[in-house]
Amino acid sequence: MVAADQESFFATAPPLGDAVAVAAKLQEFIARNSSRSHPSGKRALPRTTRPRCGTHATRAGLSFHRTPEGLANPRASLSCDVRAEGGGRRRIVCVTSGGTTVPLEQRCVRYIDNFSSGHRGAASTEYFLKAGYAVIFIHRRGSCQPFCRFLPDDSFLNFFDITTESKVQVVESHTTVVKKAIGEYSKAIEGGSLLKLPFTTIFEYLQLLKMVATSMSSVGLHGMFYLAAAVSDFYVPWDSMAKHKIQSAGGPLDMKLSQVPKMLSVLRNQWAPLAFCVSFKLETDSEILIQKAEMALNKYKMNVVVANLLATYKEEVVVVSNGERNTIRRCSKDEDLEEHIIMLLEKSHSKYICSSADACSKNGYEKVIPLGIESLA
Amino acid sequence: MVAADQESFFATAPPLGDAVAVAAKLQEFIARNSSRSHPSGKRALPRTTRPRCGTHATRAGLSFHRTPEGLANPRASLSCDVRAEGGGRRRIVCVTSGGTTVPLEQRCVRYIDNFSSGHRGAASTEYFLKAGYAVIFIHRRGSCQPFCRFLPDDSFLNFFDITTESKVQVVESHTTVVKKAIGEYSKAIEGGSLLKLPFTTIFEYLQLLKMVATSMSSVGLHGMFYLAAAVSDFYVPWDSMAKHKIQSAGGPLDMKLSQVPKMLSVLRNQWAPLAFCVSFKLETDSEILIQKAEMALNKYKMNVVVANLLATYKEEVVVVSNGERNTIRRCSKDEDLEEHIIMLLEKSHSKYICSSADACSKNGYEKVIPLGIESLA
Repeated sequence: MVAADQESFFATAPPLGDAVAVAAKLQEFIARNSSRSHPSGKRALPRTTRPRCGTHATRAGLSFHRTPEGLANPRASLSCDVRAEGGGRRRIVCVTSGGTTVPLEQRCVRYIDNFSSGHRGAASTEYFLKAGYAVIFIHRRGSCQPFCRFLPDDSFLNFFDITTESKVQVVESHTTVVKKAIGEYSKAIEGGSLLKLPFTTIFEYLQLLKMVATSMSSVGLHGMFYLAAAVSDFYVPWDSMAKHKIQSAGGPLDMKLSQVPKMLSVLRNQWAPLAFCVSFKLETDSEILIQKAEMALNKYKMNVVVANLLATYKEEVVVVSNGERNTIRRCSKDEDLEEHIIMLLEKSHSKYICSSADACSKNGYEKVIPLGIESLA
Repeated sequence: MVAADQESFFATAPPLGDAVAVAAKLQEFIARNSSRSHPSGKRALPRTTRPRCGTHATRAGLSFHRTPEGLANPRASLSCDVRAEGGGRRRIVCVTSGGTTVPLEQRCVRYIDNFSSGHRGAASTEYFLKAGYAVIFIHRRGSCQPFCRFLPDDSFLNFFDITTESKVQVVESHTTVVKKAIGEYSKAIEGGSLLKLPFTTIFEYLQLLKMVATSMSSVGLHGMFYLAAAVSDFYVPWDSMAKHKIQSAGGPLDMKLSQVPKMLSVLRNQWAPLAFCVSFKLETDSEILIQKAEMALNKYKMNVVVANLLATYKEEVVVVSNGERNTIRRCSKDEDLEEHIIMLLEKSHSKYICSSADACSKNGYEKVIPLGIESLA
């Protein structure tokens, strides 16, 4: 059923305009980066190994409690030597970011959009790069970009001054932040560690994701998917879509939307079966959030689901894995929640590689079953 | 019917968060600017009075032909002395820009959006300011801003360099454009000629438009509305909207959307009956474009309707008024179509003020009926 749905989705979707060029860039990026070695564990971790903001761990069903020392500094508790492993093959993460649109007309004037600034994906990309990952950043056109998060929405010109010699310069108060951003951005671009691929519609997004995932299957356990994009659940199949702008003179509009085929299970089972997979769950109702996150974890065999509420997504997330919940809460507005999410995920990914590689050497590579994170406590 | 619909729209819409502050800013802006005198006709016009790009005029129903000299330089053909009038009361234009959203849930994760970058509204605002108008810029949050049109979508950091003395500077090749933009932006802001009011949803947009229009009624004939925003035709009334995120587990989605009450006739008849009104018509089907534009002209008693096709809206518009069509076509990518649209509209507005004022002095102020532009040829 799922397979038939997804086949029909791709068969009827308008093809990507620049598929050949994108595929070539992608192959080159993956080949180049996967032949490098991963920075050592010491460098890969952000400077502060102890999270500054509140991190709480709990087993599913129990009330939240402060984490034991082992989790606050998770490296201490890892059973195999992840630090040594850190020097192995370079890891690649595919970060998806921003909302997908669903066109309502083929010559599109109206579309359904999903709330997402792309801030989480952009910030996470910065921290993945710092942790030594190569990043494929699949992002919504016009959404928030890595190293540009400080950019104000509508007062770009406030960044500039004209000097007495009538030269353009950056306003003094913004110099530090701009200088830091340029330095880090240039390093990522010149070092060839960041590949940016833009999308707008659900059709473009899923075709890009499929292309990246099948290309990344060669990286095996060293690949990660960090699916922070807000992906449409409902859409109008291309072949049943109105060609022209829907006219309003015809009275109220009755719109029938189909479900977008759930691609997470296809990603897990077919496209990149060995990758470490992290998906996101955004809800508005706190009553159903954790339950929905655990459902996604089991149904789509994700390694981690990051659960967040629309009202508090900037302040708090719950990182849900097999039998484990870690709440990460921001203590001040100057902190990036993403720094702590990535810190936790990097360790979990290390452990996943280590455990799966152990299983590999015992059972043969082909039989490896993707694992969830076990308790780090 | 229309009155009942629009009353119910406003009665059930979630109220603007900062209505009191916005109203105060608006009153102050209008009072200050309408007490100033309008720059003389000579200054108000852009430097090039003869359009560089192709302008064609035609009477409705006739095929297009090159315009006579009188239209290419329309000032020459005006029957009353608009140049002298130019020194009168300062004109104020309300420019609306960008697309409105229609939330599908009260705690909104999904929404219907309308295709619009806001480029036309932003560019037009620049040319209205140059022509001496004070501008109230009602714009979609995050859409294109006046004097920032050169800003690239996703490579902001490419604008900067770090000098050998490790100071941040603007890259040489961008210096000219940034310097020009800062100069013009600062002039508009410091001169108090530009008021920016942001919206996201259809609810915010229509409440802002109503507030601005009723405030601008005091400016009478000297007010203009330039309605370039892409406004939703269909919406979900707030009180029948799902409170939480719609769950996808329930199968396909059947959405019933109501028509947004047509506010153009309310604007014309109640909110600002003396203002010069310009609306836009965007279609994807060239077969129905002009017919729909003329329908809007007659039905809503607009002075001008600017008609454009989605596929060519950057290259060509048809400016439709009573019995007249002017096609403005861009000859090169370096030209702004908006420069020529505003040039034409400023002249038409002058003529409108002049004719209506004549009618005023003959018939008494109360009886003035808004006029369309007559043929300028």
